[in-house]
Amino acid sequence: MIKNNYNKLTSITYTELEKIVGTDNISNNAEQLEKYGQDETEDFIFLAEVVIKPTTVEQVSAIAKLCTENKIPLTTRGAGTGLSGGALPIKGGVLLSMEKFNKILHIDTRNLQATVEPGVINYIFQEEVKKLGLFYPPDPASWGSCSLGGNVAHSSGGPKAVKYGTTRDYVLNLEMVLPTGEIIWTGANTLKYSTGYNFTHLMVGSEGTLGIITKIVFKLIPLPKQDLLMLVPFTNAEDACKAVGAVFMAGITPSAMEFMERDAIDWSIKYAGEVNFTIKEKWQALLLIEVDGNDAEILMKDCETISEVVQQHNCDEILFADSNEQKNALWKIRRKVGEAVKSNSVYKEEDTVVPRAELPALLNGVKEIGNKYGFKSVCYGHAGDGNLHVNIIKGELSDEVWENELPKGINEIFELCKRLGGTISGEHGIGMVQKPYMPVMFSNAHLQLMKQIKLVFDPSYILNPGKIFD
Amino acid sequence: MIKNNYNKLTSITYTELEKIVGTDNISNNAEQLEKYGQDETEDFIFLAEVVIKPTTVEQVSAIAKLCTENKIPLTTRGAGTGLSGGALPIKGGVLLSMEKFNKILHIDTRNLQATVEPGVINYIFQEEVKKLGLFYPPDPASWGSCSLGGNVAHSSGGPKAVKYGTTRDYVLNLEMVLPTGEIIWTGANTLKYSTGYNFTHLMVGSEGTLGIITKIVFKLIPLPKQDLLMLVPFTNAEDACKAVGAVFMAGITPSAMEFMERDAIDWSIKYAGEVNFTIKEKWQALLLIEVDGNDAEILMKDCETISEVVQQHNCDEILFADSNEQKNALWKIRRKVGEAVKSNSVYKEEDTVVPRAELPALLNGVKEIGNKYGFKSVCYGHAGDGNLHVNIIKGELSDEVWENELPKGINEIFELCKRLGGTISGEHGIGMVQKPYMPVMFSNAHLQLMKQIKLVFDPSYILNPGKIFD
Repeated sequence: MIKNNYNKLTSITYTELEKIVGTDNISNNAEQLEKYGQDETEDFIFLAEVVIKPTTVEQVSAIAKLCTENKIPLTTRGAGTGLSGGALPIKGGVLLSMEKFNKILHIDTRNLQATVEPGVINYIFQEEVKKLGLFYPPDPASWGSCSLGGNVAHSSGGPKAVKYGTTRDYVLNLEMVLPTGEIIWTGANTLKYSTGYNFTHLMVGSEGTLGIITKIVFKLIPLPKQDLLMLVPFTNAEDACKAVGAVFMAGITPSAMEFMERDAIDWSIKYAGEVNFTIKEKWQALLLIEVDGNDAEILMKDCETISEVVQQHNCDEILFADSNEQKNALWKIRRKVGEAVKSNSVYKEEDTVVPRAELPALLNGVKEIGNKYGFKSVCYGHAGDGNLHVNIIKGELSDEVWENELPKGINEIFELCKRLGGTISGEHGIGMVQKPYMPVMFSNAHLQLMKQIKLVFDPSYILNPGKIFD
Repeated sequence: MIKNNYNKLTSITYTELEKIVGTDNISNNAEQLEKYGQDETEDFIFLAEVVIKPTTVEQVSAIAKLCTENKIPLTTRGAGTGLSGGALPIKGGVLLSMEKFNKILHIDTRNLQATVEPGVINYIFQEEVKKLGLFYPPDPASWGSCSLGGNVAHSSGGPKAVKYGTTRDYVLNLEMVLPTGEIIWTGANTLKYSTGYNFTHLMVGSEGTLGIITKIVFKLIPLPKQDLLMLVPFTNAEDACKAVGAVFMAGITPSAMEFMERDAIDWSIKYAGEVNFTIKEKWQALLLIEVDGNDAEILMKDCETISEVVQQHNCDEILFADSNEQKNALWKIRRKVGEAVKSNSVYKEEDTVVPRAELPALLNGVKEIGNKYGFKSVCYGHAGDGNLHVNIIKGELSDEVWENELPKGINEIFELCKRLGGTISGEHGIGMVQKPYMPVMFSNAHLQLMKQIKLVFDPSYILNPGKIFD
């Protein structure tokens, strides 16, 4: 996969890399290269020439400088849970794993901020701040294993994003290493910032193509004291989608508003184990709706309002989770859908997003396009954000159709997203797999600007080459 | 002021400009040039060679193209309420006033979004969305006259930012004209976006140096139904600053948390007229604290908690505003401080911002630095955000000291901000007046990256030249 204009790693640079990080933190054995050549995106494997695990920012700086000088591809990896191939070393070279940057450096309860290293696992961070009565809301489905640095690189969302925003909304400042080895802070540890071009926001979502994040300053908020969870079944998936918008129009902002199609539910339950309630035959879709806050009475009132709204949209009997156990069971069904689909068939996952009220049009359009091209899709996702994960299932499709016809169908889905005011990725990023579809969203002039910005930061084009655009 | 490398407007290009916008929308008479040569920054006047008021995006595109081709400076202006000289045409050329882009194009109640032109006045927009039960929170002190486009260009804040964020947090998508005349949308109308480099966030706060905004898609939220306002006096300004952090640590996020020093209060009352309560001699600072929400009982509880906290920080007797009239009177005092200071003396306003809990250290530092350099300062601002507006008063200082010594003092204030984790502008922007201090915040490598990004968008360097950096 390495293009001619990149250099191969020579024994000299391997030795130099080894000098930087020490023998224990570098490897080029086949097993390691294979392990670090995958993420959670379909079944891709791309081998780097070396896997390196720095432990200090100075080491990262030295590695970046060396790779720039020798024009060697340098791909940064968080925990490898990405869904767009962002961490795959598709041009070979150096795979830089940030897993040893795993310290929560400071939780500042005076300013409601925390400074962390990028390799910290999302869930661990959440639990640590919770102990101090604080809350870090972004919670991707992979929160148990994904890294905060990876979350920043993709502006990851999760169920709570509908009320609390995505990772972007919590990043105040970043320490980053430029490809030259220079170390800068992107901004300041402040809630307001109007001091020249905002590099913090440029870095968020840039998928490791502009610099290497070595520290993150997050904003935290007070932890809501209570939450209520309800499961709302519908016999018609479009009704469920319509109910989503109606809840917000009634003045309620739930802390989660998740949508699952029938197949998603069945597959997830089959994969994740039994549930202690009956999934009726006639249900075609579920909404999982959570409200949170500090006052139980108000939350109950919110739930009543929501109940009225969903009933107007022909829901079946609503289930309220009456224990933490039941809440966890319901969340497990939702969180495991992705893995369940993956275990079931070859598939492609699209991360479509539209303005919330266009969700019914998106869902219908996806099904129509599926009928046209002969593919089945399993849809679920963050309906409150208009963010629908469309899992296209290979099933009985021939390799020929899968390779040649499917991209046309995906193109049509993305064109529909754009027409509805949406875009081709809400929280997974472009990485490698969505790259061919960027022209659906952007004019050539727009893409050229992106490429030139890439060159400003990374003139040798060594950082995560081949991602977002060619 | 025009450097040799820019061209003067020739009669040919004036005629061409006239053809684009029509005779009624172009002028080069002295009165117009003077009027559009000022904003609210100190007493600066810089004359453009022509003032032009386009009415369509196609006109803006044609103007941009013409200026690029002829290498003529092009400075975009909103309503001219800026405090950093961002809209001043310091290199001459074309002054592009967006005042005729004044339409609210669509308020989308299904998706809680609105599409507006950039010349719409902030307050008018707020009132229009309110009629539909919706809320657009950013409310700079100049809300009655500032434009939404200018707000985007500086990521303006205002009192509500402490709970609801700044303009940045409400911009979903922008239509912008590039200097080449190309028209692009920066993103999508979605709450989540992970689709390549985020141009929406790059444009916000870029002060008209990268492109010309012609449409804005804003996120809206449901309008809170109630608010309560309390005025908390302190006999010691540092106590007031300390109380600010303590309120947040008690788990309350007020919808406003404003700080005023004694002088700011006196000057504002003198300027804005009498108030219907007594300002006691011993008061050295006031906090204006607002809470909002949908439930009166909870707001009362919040106020009780706040009262307990501020009493622990030695406040004097708390005043609750008991009518809309009194609320407006209190807000008027706060909103008029800036104008009051301006009417009183030659001054310079610094827009310092630090993490909230560092506010006492910032206030003390500002006073110490003032003592060292012999200047008096009047401080007030958005204390809940750690955003302190420091008005340095010329008073009896000699021109010599004002010109040569004061910049050293300002430099020290900004160095202090940086040391405390803050920055040199929270919401006013860099524009012309803070430009010399950028090296306090940024390394040369960092500034070079900004300049190169400028060149990616604007290779002829015609857009608002001489702002943010040289």
